[in-house]
Amino acid sequence: MRKTIRQTLPIAALLVGFGTGALADDGPHDKAIKARQAMFQLYGFNIGILSAMAKGKMDYDADIALEAAENLDAAANLGQSQFWPQGSDNETEGNARTRALPVIWSTFPAIVEKADALKTATAALVPVAGNGLDELKGAMGDVGASCKGCHDDYRAEKK
Amino acid sequence: MRKTIRQTLPIAALLVGFGTGALADDGPHDKAIKARQAMFQLYGFNIGILSAMAKGKMDYDADIALEAAENLDAAANLGQSQFWPQGSDNETEGNARTRALPVIWSTFPAIVEKADALKTATAALVPVAGNGLDELKGAMGDVGASCKGCHDDYRAEKK
Repeated sequence: MRKTIRQTLPIAALLVGFGTGALADDGPHDKAIKARQAMFQLYGFNIGILSAMAKGKMDYDADIALEAAENLDAAANLGQSQFWPQGSDNETEGNARTRALPVIWSTFPAIVEKADALKTATAALVPVAGNGLDELKGAMGDVGASCKGCHDDYRAEKK
Repeated sequence: MRKTIRQTLPIAALLVGFGTGALADDGPHDKAIKARQAMFQLYGFNIGILSAMAKGKMDYDADIALEAAENLDAAANLGQSQFWPQGSDNETEGNARTRALPVIWSTFPAIVEKADALKTATAALVPVAGNGLDELKGAMGDVGASCKGCHDDYRAEKK
C-alpha cells in the first residue's frame, strides 16, 4: 500500500496541482490570479467576522468589528489594474484555478460598477461598525448585496 | 493506468491536502492563517511589481508603481489582531501549512516593531513611487530590509 501511494503520488499531485493551482504559479497570469484571490480571501475573512457577530455566533466586540470593517474597506479599495489581465479568465487554458468569467473582460468596465457598490457599502460600514450590534447589522445588508451583485454576474458556479 | 490514478487519487489528494492545507480549512486556526497569508500574498505581488521595475525587468510606469506602492501600504496597515491566534504557529498540530515560528507568540509584542518598520518604509515609498525610477529605487531598500528583518527572526526556512 505504501509503495502504491509513493509510486502514484507524483502523478496524482500533478493532477491536483493542475486542478487547484495550489502547487505552482507558472501560468502566465497566475500571480495576478492569486493576488486577486488574496483580496477576496481578505474580503471573506473580515466579512466572516462581521457576519458571525451579526448572527450571534460570535460575541460582538466593538474593537474587533471596527478592525474588520476597516480591513474590508482597505481590501475593497486596493488598486486592481494589475489583478485582472486579459486572458486570466476561467476558460483560457493554463491558468490557476479561477472562477472569473470571460464576461468580465467582454463587458469591461461594467464590472467597475460592482466594485464601486462594494466601496460605497464598506465606506458606510466603517463609521458604524464599532457603534454596537444594531448599527453593524444595519450596514451589513448593502455589503452582502454588493458581494452577491458581482458574484451573480461575473463568477462561475462552484464545480 | 487511468484506473490506477482513479483508485489512488483520493488517498493522494488527502495527503497533498494535509501537507499544503490547500484543500480545506478545517483546522481551528486555518481561516486566520489563510487571512495573514493573503496579506503576505499582496505584499509579495506588489513588491514583485516594484522590484521588477527597479531591476529593469519591467518598464517603469508611474501609475502602476504608485498603485503597487499604495496597495503595499494598505496591506501593511491591515489590522492584524485576528490574524495571529495563539496556537497558529508551525509547530502546533492541525494547522494549515504555515512558516510562522512559535517565537512570534513567546516574545510578543516584539514582532510589532517589525510590522512598524514595514509601515514606516511603505509610508515613505508611496509619495515617491510615481516620481520616476530613481526615487522608487531609493525607497525600496527600506522596504526590503523590513521584510528581511521579520523573516529572519519569525519565519521558518522553506522545507
